[in-house]
Amino acid sequence: MKTVYSPDHAAHAGHWEVARGAMVPCFEKPIRAEYVRARVEEVGLGEIVLPKVWSMETARKVHDPAYLAFLGKAWDMWAAEGNHTSALPMTWPVRGLRNDVPPECIEGLLGFYSMDAGASITAGTWKAVKASMDCALTAAEIVAGGARAAFALCRPPGHHSGPAFMGGYCFINNASVAAQWFRDQGAARVAILDVDYHHGNGTQDIFYERGDVFVANIHGDPKTEYPYFLGHADETGRGAGEGCNVNYPLPFGTAWDTWSLALDAACDRAEAFGAEVIVVSLGVDTFERDPISAFKLKTADYPKMGARIAKLGKPTLFVFEGGYAVDEIGVNAVGVLTGFEGR
Amino acid sequence: MKTVYSPDHAAHAGHWEVARGAMVPCFEKPIRAEYVRARVEEVGLGEIVLPKVWSMETARKVHDPAYLAFLGKAWDMWAAEGNHTSALPMTWPVRGLRNDVPPECIEGLLGFYSMDAGASITAGTWKAVKASMDCALTAAEIVAGGARAAFALCRPPGHHSGPAFMGGYCFINNASVAAQWFRDQGAARVAILDVDYHHGNGTQDIFYERGDVFVANIHGDPKTEYPYFLGHADETGRGAGEGCNVNYPLPFGTAWDTWSLALDAACDRAEAFGAEVIVVSLGVDTFERDPISAFKLKTADYPKMGARIAKLGKPTLFVFEGGYAVDEIGVNAVGVLTGFEGR
Ligand SMILES: [Zn+2]
Ligand SMILES: [Zn+2]
Repeated sequence: MKTVYSPDHAAHAGHWEVARGAMVPCFEKPIRAEYVRARVEEVGLGEIVLPKVWSMETARKVHDPAYLAFLGKAWDMWAAEGNHTSALPMTWPVRGLRNDVPPECIEGLLGFYSMDAGASITAGTWKAVKASMDCALTAAEIVAGGARAAFALCRPPGHHSGPAFMGGYCFINNASVAAQWFRDQGAARVAILDVDYHHGNGTQDIFYERGDVFVANIHGDPKTEYPYFLGHADETGRGAGEGCNVNYPLPFGTAWDTWSLALDAACDRAEAFGAEVIVVSLGVDTFERDPISAFKLKTADYPKMGARIAKLGKPTLFVFEGGYAVDEIGVNAVGVLTGFEGR
Repeated sequence: MKTVYSPDHAAHAGHWEVARGAMVPCFEKPIRAEYVRARVEEVGLGEIVLPKVWSMETARKVHDPAYLAFLGKAWDMWAAEGNHTSALPMTWPVRGLRNDVPPECIEGLLGFYSMDAGASITAGTWKAVKASMDCALTAAEIVAGGARAAFALCRPPGHHSGPAFMGGYCFINNASVAAQWFRDQGAARVAILDVDYHHGNGTQDIFYERGDVFVANIHGDPKTEYPYFLGHADETGRGAGEGCNVNYPLPFGTAWDTWSLALDAACDRAEAFGAEVIVVSLGVDTFERDPISAFKLKTADYPKMGARIAKLGKPTLFVFEGGYAVDEIGVNAVGVLTGFEGR
């Protein structure tokens, strides 16, 4: 299958994130995408192509346009105040605070449009974020054009980004934009399978009241794992979306034997939903040696994951999400893709 | 007037807070209370007494008991994971995330019960927080016992703390607990005048739907100042509390000539409300050289502030809140109190 990759991802390299009460170097760093790209070449997965430049039209259907405008100007506002290192928020509009009046200063806006202190904005962030979305849409177009599958090597990732907030290293929800684009191209029903270790709270939130996009998540139980405040099993969708969301929260230490049962169940649900296209939010932080995660998947499990998804027999877009054990990230991510291709 | 002070405040000394995209040493530090205490002694304001030890009964009427229980155990949970420096949250339950399922781990709980990365918890935080509340209640009892006024030298401060969250250096909302206690003692109507530079979002939130406690805030406009997401002029109370909340957001650079007009208006409103007791949330970060604020009050203005409040002719409890220009913090805070006493 083809891979869509943009070197512009490297323009986004945040300095710090808050973890364990301290500033630590960002886990989500440029080398991640380069390891995956190198592995794509090493196994000869297929052609690597640059993304086309897309308009923001589709993104505006899944994100608040004011939020997207904020992303485009955040660094300039931050730098205008004399800051040189990554922009990070420091106050959030939790319950009891207002969400209807955007502040007029960058410190306030950063909090207004975020859910955590884990999405740092630098001078090159918007360029990378836009290129990441362009990768997803270009790969989606390849699939819509008749390819069995395509791989959007997106960076930064997207699945924590909600309708109007960044967080968890994510800014634009690439998988959601792609799913929306498939809908706009005529696919009646789209399924998103999120296999990243972390719950894709942004994706769930975006489609929670919609009946046309099914969302399944297999992830670390939010009772004890980031993002903590979404991803429970009782979240099944609302209104027109009732029954179109399913969560499989799993405990620390989950290995393939249990994890794969959840994948089977998620695939069955996507099939029953009648999905015409599958979008996979492909994070490989489920790996046993991932530095910030606690599942126990092994390198040999990733091709089996791809093979199971292939069994759905649907056009499939893979959108890269998380995964932080940089040495193995390429092998594991591409392992899913070669497994999908049955080789 | 008497001052209620506990040396236990010094047990709370956070290491870091997030500001301008970095960890910076906490502005809210023990020396603040010591400067104020020294000035109380220097001018001979009156006896300095230790607080009595109070139960949590009154606090449970203005805060979620589960939140208070969390505060009491947070450091132990944090330390049990091998952490040695201040506990700080890193993810918050903003819109689109759930507020009905408390996480089971300390990282999740810290975010669940907070609004920012500015309330760090250390080994001694609970001891100091409890002593701070005890100071407020003991001083309230002195006022209820017939004193014209009393000064609760609280540290940490309280006015950003809401029904179930910490933030802005605040954990228990001391002024709100004291106001509730006055109500329980038989005062039909209580007014809280918050003159700290920052909007007392927690206090407003706690009493927003109640008609028995009037809350007035004079503060930096939240459009451009912390806490950003509350404190606008259109927030007037809700339900039984409609008309019992008033905000005077003022622009950067506001000096006494304008600031005092807001104080006049707030006092007139408190009088019209029929307040039998006045609780003053006394922050002096309105000072022209405060390191994190942008008003332009001068040292000579603080006695005038006290004199204006004295004109209300009501029993008055002063509860210490913010103020970060440590050299002048004592002179300015005690200036309000001597001004109140007309000397
Ligand atoms: Zn992840
Ligand atoms: Zn303040």
